Amino acid sequence: MEITVVKIGGNVIDRPADLTSFLKNFAALSGNKILVHGGGKLATQLSAKLGIPAKMIDGRRVTDSQTIEIVTMVYAGLINKSITAQLQSLGCDAAGFSGADAGIIRAVKRSPCPVDFGFVGDIPDDGINAARLLTFINMGLVPVFCSITADEHGVLLNCNADTIAQSVATALSSAGASAKLIYCFEKQGLLSDLNDDSSVIPLINSANCGKLKAEGIISAGMIPKIDNAFKALTTGVKEVVIKSHFDLNRDGKGTKIIQ
Amino acid sequence: MEITVVKIGGNVIDRPADLTSFLKNFAALSGNKILVHGGGKLATQLSAKLGIPAKMIDGRRVTDSQTIEIVTMVYAGLINKSITAQLQSLGCDAAGFSGADAGIIRAVKRSPCPVDFGFVGDIPDDGINAARLLTFINMGLVPVFCSITADEHGVLLNCNADTIAQSVATALSSAGASAKLIYCFEKQGLLSDLNDDSSVIPLINSANCGKLKAEGIISAGMIPKIDNAFKALTTGVKEVVIKSHFDLNRDGKGTKIIQ
Repeated sequence: MEITVVKIGGNVIDRPADLTSFLKNFAALSGNKILVHGGGKLATQLSAKLGIPAKMIDGRRVTDSQTIEIVTMVYAGLINKSITAQLQSLGCDAAGFSGADAGIIRAVKRSPCPVDFGFVGDIPDDGINAARLLTFINMGLVPVFCSITADEHGVLLNCNADTIAQSVATALSSAGASAKLIYCFEKQGLLSDLNDDSSVIPLINSANCGKLKAEGIISAGMIPKIDNAFKALTTGVKEVVIKSHFDLNRDGKGTKIIQ
Repeated sequence: MEITVVKIGGNVIDRPADLTSFLKNFAALSGNKILVHGGGKLATQLSAKLGIPAKMIDGRRVTDSQTIEIVTMVYAGLINKSITAQLQSLGCDAAGFSGADAGIIRAVKRSPCPVDFGFVGDIPDDGINAARLLTFINMGLVPVFCSITADEHGVLLNCNADTIAQSVATALSSAGASAKLIYCFEKQGLLSDLNDDSSVIPLINSANCGKLKAEGIISAGMIPKIDNAFKALTTGVKEVVIKSHFDLNRDGKGTKIIQ
């Protein structure tokens, strides 16, 4: 069975017109598919409105008990259900899930040592119930995951959505499916010049990846995305592509990552 | 197939200890089951914190565009995922759903005439996809519904959770299942004297219902609940009981409603 796992980034979710455009493309994507969505700025805005101060350690946000409630409301509630309802209206038989639902994704709370980031989860290698996910897909459903999961004690945790997409694609591959992973965002791919949208690097492999990192072309938020991509490829995922949400259905666009 | 549909009220959800106690009882309930939960006061509190004024017409809340976002966040996000994660940790294979998910419940926006209550939905007779719900139950899943649904255009709507419970039980009965409906709340049943917890009326039928309404014993929020109960019974539901969440697993407790 072939399955395409699509991750859509927060910057697209933040712009209603872009999100609608993406969802139309996603609904039109043929074959079995899964959507994983990030969060966007809504949670940060809601926290600010409620006067909950952002706690940062080393430039990274701490998910305290108030923040996990906020992100659960925004990601698992408003964004997940808005996306699911829109996809259903487009004829795409979507079902929105957190990791807790049907026990599909079990996470583990990140160790508080050396840094306590709070209610943040990581997904262990056996954390995805691929058999159940495949049952849903065989029913014709299109699972839509937010980044909220839970641990075995029922504690809600926020995970990285890129990592969820990779973990899901890896688990499906291990279960015998042929999984493809697409990271969709607002750029046309990995750009060699951030100010030039046409400077898309068509191919990244283990040979040129180190050089691109050293040159700072793969930098900041792109580093974990590329690392996730390589992790997916080394764990059985057939193909990883980083591309624009406008190009979702256009083959050959974006940056292809191979081993 | 026998299925118990349990609706849990907002007052239980508002008290964490009561909710945990209820969820333990619900997890221990034998057989196929579905949970429908109300909202509690969290959404009202969040609206107040955000300075969104409550709009009321004839004592009933109007669900404007800001309010439907709030209730979607609180009901479909925080409450639904907290309940689902807790049930999973108790060994109950719960899956949280809004009506939009997997197209299970299609609602219709209530007509703005004579009164425009905003983003409020009603469930048409053919609004429940019982076949899909039965597929999930046959997988061993325990569906957990919040009161958020969507119409065919992907517009999110808030429905009455009591009505969702009745509509689900009715649709399952029409599809050949033997459905039982339990409305769980903080009282031990319908009380003839609100100040006396032992004054539970054991049985309501169409013969004594009118008298109880005339005497004001069935009043306020209990009227639509009893009306929903009778609607369920006249549309094939086998049994309707109103009882305390403490008594969920105790037969013979509460108020039984028969035709």
